[in-house]
This record gives sequence, C-alpha cells and structure tokens, in this order.
Amino acid sequence: MSERTFNVGLLGHGTVGAAFVELLRDRADQVAAVTGLRPELSGVLTRSRGDFDEILEASDLIVEVIGGVEPARDYVLRAMQAGKHVVTANKLLLSQHGEELWAAAREHDVQLRYEAAVAGVVPVIRVLNESLGAAHVDRIHGIVNGTTNFILSEMARTGAAYEDALADAQQLGYAESDPSDDVSGRDAAAKMAILARLAFNTPVHLDDVRYEGIEHLTPEDMEYAHELGLGLKLIGTAERVDGGISVRVHPAFLYGGHPLASVDGPFNAVTIESPAITEVTLSGPGAGGPQTASAVLGDVVSAMIPPASTPPTIDDLPIVTDVESAFYLYLEVADRPGVLAQVAELLGMQGASIKSVVQKGLGDNARLVMVVHPLLESRFFAAVELIGRLDFVRAKPRAIRVIEEQFS
Amino acid sequence: MSERTFNVGLLGHGTVGAAFVELLRDRADQVAAVTGLRPELSGVLTRSRGDFDEILEASDLIVEVIGGVEPARDYVLRAMQAGKHVVTANKLLLSQHGEELWAAAREHDVQLRYEAAVAGVVPVIRVLNESLGAAHVDRIHGIVNGTTNFILSEMARTGAAYEDALADAQQLGYAESDPSDDVSGRDAAAKMAILARLAFNTPVHLDDVRYEGIEHLTPEDMEYAHELGLGLKLIGTAERVDGGISVRVHPAFLYGGHPLASVDGPFNAVTIESPAITEVTLSGPGAGGPQTASAVLGDVVSAMIPPASTPPTIDDLPIVTDVESAFYLYLEVADRPGVLAQVAELLGMQGASIKSVVQKGLGDNARLVMVVHPLLESRFFAAVELIGRLDFVRAKPRAIRVIEEQFS
Repeated sequence: MSERTFNVGLLGHGTVGAAFVELLRDRADQVAAVTGLRPELSGVLTRSRGDFDEILEASDLIVEVIGGVEPARDYVLRAMQAGKHVVTANKLLLSQHGEELWAAAREHDVQLRYEAAVAGVVPVIRVLNESLGAAHVDRIHGIVNGTTNFILSEMARTGAAYEDALADAQQLGYAESDPSDDVSGRDAAAKMAILARLAFNTPVHLDDVRYEGIEHLTPEDMEYAHELGLGLKLIGTAERVDGGISVRVHPAFLYGGHPLASVDGPFNAVTIESPAITEVTLSGPGAGGPQTASAVLGDVVSAMIPPASTPPTIDDLPIVTDVESAFYLYLEVADRPGVLAQVAELLGMQGASIKSVVQKGLGDNARLVMVVHPLLESRFFAAVELIGRLDFVRAKPRAIRVIEEQFS
Repeated sequence: MSERTFNVGLLGHGTVGAAFVELLRDRADQVAAVTGLRPELSGVLTRSRGDFDEILEASDLIVEVIGGVEPARDYVLRAMQAGKHVVTANKLLLSQHGEELWAAAREHDVQLRYEAAVAGVVPVIRVLNESLGAAHVDRIHGIVNGTTNFILSEMARTGAAYEDALADAQQLGYAESDPSDDVSGRDAAAKMAILARLAFNTPVHLDDVRYEGIEHLTPEDMEYAHELGLGLKLIGTAERVDGGISVRVHPAFLYGGHPLASVDGPFNAVTIESPAITEVTLSGPGAGGPQTASAVLGDVVSAMIPPASTPPTIDDLPIVTDVESAFYLYLEVADRPGVLAQVAELLGMQGASIKSVVQKGLGDNARLVMVVHPLLESRFFAAVELIGRLDFVRAKPRAIRVIEEQFS
C-alpha cells in the first residue's frame, strides 16, 4: 500500500532541533497511523550548512527553532508567503512581531502554530485557542520560566542566597551562563504577552508587559514566606481590569492553597480563570529538548490534520498599568516605641489596610514584616516612598506582591 | 453584512442542557468572531416535548446531554448517519459503545466530540487526541470523580466517618441521593476506559476496567495518611504493563509530592506520563452545569472549524489484570510477642518487602500498619489471605494501594 509523505523542513539544530529529529524518527509510524501521512525530514538548516530556499521548496511545513528575531522572522514570513505551514518555538519573535506573522498566515491561508513558545509541552496555547476559544477569560496566572522557578525552589528548600542558587542552576544546566533574560523576568514577559494576546483577543506587544526579576530576593524573604505558609514564585499575570487589561511579571507570594504554590523546580504551570469554568490549571516541564520537541511535534501533527490556528483580532483593549494587589512589606527599623504606629499611619493615608504584622527585635534594630490587603499599586508605592524617608528606617523598604486566595 | 448560521440541536435539558442554552446565548458573538459562523439553537428535545426527527433535520450539529445508554445511543447514531456532527457528554455510552460510534463517525465523515464526558472542563480529551496524538503515553493517573474526591477531602479535613461525609456531600449537592455509581468507582471506571482508549489507541470497554469504591474507608485510614504525610484519593490508573495495558480504579495513598495529592474538594485532575514529556498535569472543576456546558461549547466550536476527532485503532493490546503495586496493610492483632515476625514471614514468602511499619498498643490488642514495596497484586493478596487466618488477627486485614513517587 503506497503512503503519501509530508515533508518537514527544520531551521535550527540546537538542543530542540536535535531532539526533534530524533523524536520525528521515533514517532513517524504513529504519526502516519494517526494522520494517514508519513512525516519525513526534507532538510536541516544550521549556521554552517543547508540552503533555506532549497529546504523551503522541498517542504510542506517549516519548523523554526533558531530563536531570536532575525533571521527567524524573515524565514517564517517567506515560508508562509510560499504557502507552507509553520511551527515555531520562538516566543521573542511572536511577542514582538506576532500581528505581522498572524496576518501573513491568514493572508496566505497557512497555519502558524507555536505551542512550544510558551511553557514547553504544557498545552496552554491549544487550550486557550481551542477548548476555551469561546470562553470569556478573566485572568491568567503563570509560572512560565523554569530557570527562575528552579532558583526560587532551591532558595526555599535550602535557605541558599540568590547568587548561590543561581550558580547551582547553572551547574545543573537549568540556567544559561548569561542568565539575564530569565532572571530579569523578560523571558516570562514575552510568554505572558502571547498568552494575553490569545486570552483577550487583543494585540499585546512585549513592550506592553511590565516585568521585575528575582535578583533582589533574599533568604529572609523565603524565611518569612515559610513562616506564613506562603510560596514565593515569579508569577506572570494577565487580567482584565476596568475595561482594559494588565499584563505583568513579578515575584509574588502565593497562599499555600493556590494551584501554583506547589509547583516546584524547573516546572511550569498556568492557571486560567473564567466565570463559566472557575479555573483550569495545566502544569508540566517548561523546557528541555525532548519536551519542547514533543510540543513541536504535536503542532506538526495538528497542521497535517487541518484545523484553524490564527487568533482573530476582536477587541482593541487598552493596557492598564495601575492595578490592585496585596503586598508584603519588609522593613528594617530602629527598635523604639511608635515605629509601627507611624508606618501604619502612612499606609492608612493611602488606603492600605494591614492584614498581618510580625515584629522581631535584633539588638538595637527590629524587623517589621507586614501583609496589606489589596490596593492600587500606585497608592501602595506612594506610601512606601514616604516610609523609606522616616528617620528610623534603616534600609530601603522591600515590597513583594501577594496573590490572595480567590475562593476563600 | 450577512452572516451564515450554524444550527445546534440539543437533546436533554437537565442541569447541563439548561446551562448550555444560557452559555450559547452569552457567547454567540464571540463564537461568530472566532469561526465566522453564528451558532443558533435549532431545537431542544426533552422527555415531554420536541421531536427528534424535526430537530435533526434543522441542525448541523447535535449536542447529546441526555445521559444513559438508550435512547442516547440511537439518537447519536442516527444523527451521524444523517451526516450531522455530534458533541456528547455521555461517558457511559462511550465506554460501552465507543467503537461502534467512532466507526460510524468515520464512515459518515462527521465529527464526534466528547470532552465533557471526562473530567468536565479539564481538557484531557483534547490534549490526548491532539497535543499528545503522536506521543507514546506510558501511564495516566486521574482523579476523575468529583463526588468521591469531595467526600475523601472532607474525611481528611474533619475526621468524619464516610457516612457523615457522604451525607454532607448530598446536602451540598456534590452527591446524588443514590450515590452508588460514584462511590462504587463505576463512574470513574467509565471515564478511565475512555482515557485508556485514547492514550493507547486500543479498544477498551467499561467491562475491562476493575474498580473498587470508597465505602470501606475509615477515619483511621485518614489518620494514618496524615501521620505519614500521604493523601488518600480514589485514583484511576491506565498504564502499559508487560506489552499490555491495565485500567483500574481504587483508593490509593499518594505521597505528598505527587501532583494529584493536593487536589481537594470536587476538583478533577489527570496526570499523563510519557518518556518525551516526563509528565503533564491538568486540573479543574470536574462537574457542574456551567463547567460541563463550557466543555460542550469548546467542542461545538471545534466542530465548526473542522479538525479530525476520531481515534484510529492502531494496536490491539491485551488487558493485563495482575499488576505491581505498593500497599498499605492495616491489621488489628493481639498484642503479644512474635506477631510482627509471623506477618513479615508470610509477606516475605510472597516476595513482599516491608518499607515501613508502625505498631500501636490498644490494651490487649494492637494496630499494626505497614507499607510494602511494589509487588504483583496477586502475590500480595495471597499473603493477606494467609495473614487473615492467623489466630492472633482480630479483624479482616485492610489493604490499600500506595502510589509511589515517580521521580525520587
């Protein structure tokens, strides 16, 4: 019985590319059984070998795992213009040039799939696009960077300082030698831009996402988190606020019962909230060659069995920059009467209400740690600015967001 | 601008049906924006009103939420024979007549979708069919019955007896007045049959699934679980074993770090293990009218934008009935010397190795609780049978499976 083939051209042969070649060989029989078409590698482009035009000509679909904006953008556009489907793992490209690429996919009636761009094999793109394609999504919380989650998990587990946990992560291959894209929150920001784009059907660019990293977190933060029964994670948030949306990434404490609180190590997880469904949580390995390659292969198979994949623009929602949040505030102060009263007064003037407070003496000084109920960030930071100028405050105040339980 | 419509006929108007009518009205604009087609309700069939043939004639797609085998099976078959797509939430129907229905879908080239049949809005069907369509799935663990998970969570939280926790669940609407399908494990067994069918591409019938319920669990089991840092859940398992598969449902302890251990209340969750992806966990509300209706609507939208949906038969794997498991064994014994030695000897003769043991005196009697390392169930139960006949054993031995950590 003759079987038709489906030709896949591969751009990039790093960790993910090499894992994809191996996975495709292992699973070709299964794919042929599922789709009726046998996938075959039509060519591989690396920095030193292969010709893009020849590979394009020989392919039904192009897999782009080069990373970075150029030349990836140029290749992806030319592939779609030539009527080829594209599967990409490139979050930077999509978070900066997504609209151009999706428009090209629609214009040339090809598929552009990108499950591997966000949270590796965790199928959040497909679930947002398909299962929840007609749902009204209110909010997404995500742990979408495995490097930082690994570092924070190590800090929580061992009491290590940030620098030491980072060095461990580098030694174990969970962090790159230049970790700045991960630890600064920028990588997570690119992923949250893509998720927000899909959840809210409105254009979101990486530049719309505010982000803060984990470099400033200390063992003391972890200690307090532990004492209060909280987890401390780098959390991406995309939510509807006042007729607009807010997309941001920052360290945040999570109450023990939150679905993301127990996600440890290099894992990723995303919680999607919508009135009809309450919430759905998806979790799994966020990175790694075989895992990412598996997400790419899932997309290749879906492209072979044609479904729709490009998100339409329905709304043009504004980006909201000032949102409500609960906060943890850590102060080092002189240990003398009236300190707590003055801090509380400055917070109260901005409408911040204190939920819990712990004070610990340390010789002449004291540590004052409090959690305040949700209020607008701008108002909270205005209070913190004034608190920082009080003469008994011994060090720069430290503030970290707290994600409250939704269903308590 | 004229817009084409997509006519949806609804069979059944109970909790899910009524919620679907409301959701469809709320989300019609969004669906039209995503698909280019406007979904409209073409008719509703209830026990007292509506005519099936008229509704069928007027519909592009039929939603079946009647439940039960007949007349649901007849309606679904006739709809597909008439060239209409079908979306169903009917786990009993699919776990008993799935092969006939999938064959009919292929023969008449229509879609048959059933996300809502397993774990409500948790998108496990789509992820198995699409994201992991080409993956080699080794094992699925699932909490797929919200009623029993609620009851067990209450027992763990309050120390209540099974009967009291069941009464609470009934009062809160989490359990039906006749709860036998849920508490016996049969409902979970039907769902695991469907998941195993998809994961392993081999026919699996409800009759192939062994199941055990939660009626016999006691507050003492919960107490020990708590002492040992374990969760006690009703777990569905589908796994490859010795070139075959095993599909089963039974109470099991889970180590604290297992992704399912922290799933409490009426929630559902499924963990899928595969070499390339390590594991992916999906969780969310497992039942409820709006949640189930949301899963149905996701399927309706997918049917409007055509993808493939029927699982091919690739393998014809045998069903394995005797598998390895770790066990917790609870004995009430006379408190006298040599008891532990005799129990250990009988276990050892069957190859059971003891991992941990706790003995507690209670006047003349003692409680002996142990966990044994994985061994074939048949061998373990042979030992338990002999142990039960020892003269110092005061009550029927109680055995519960333990799911070990996979990645320790």
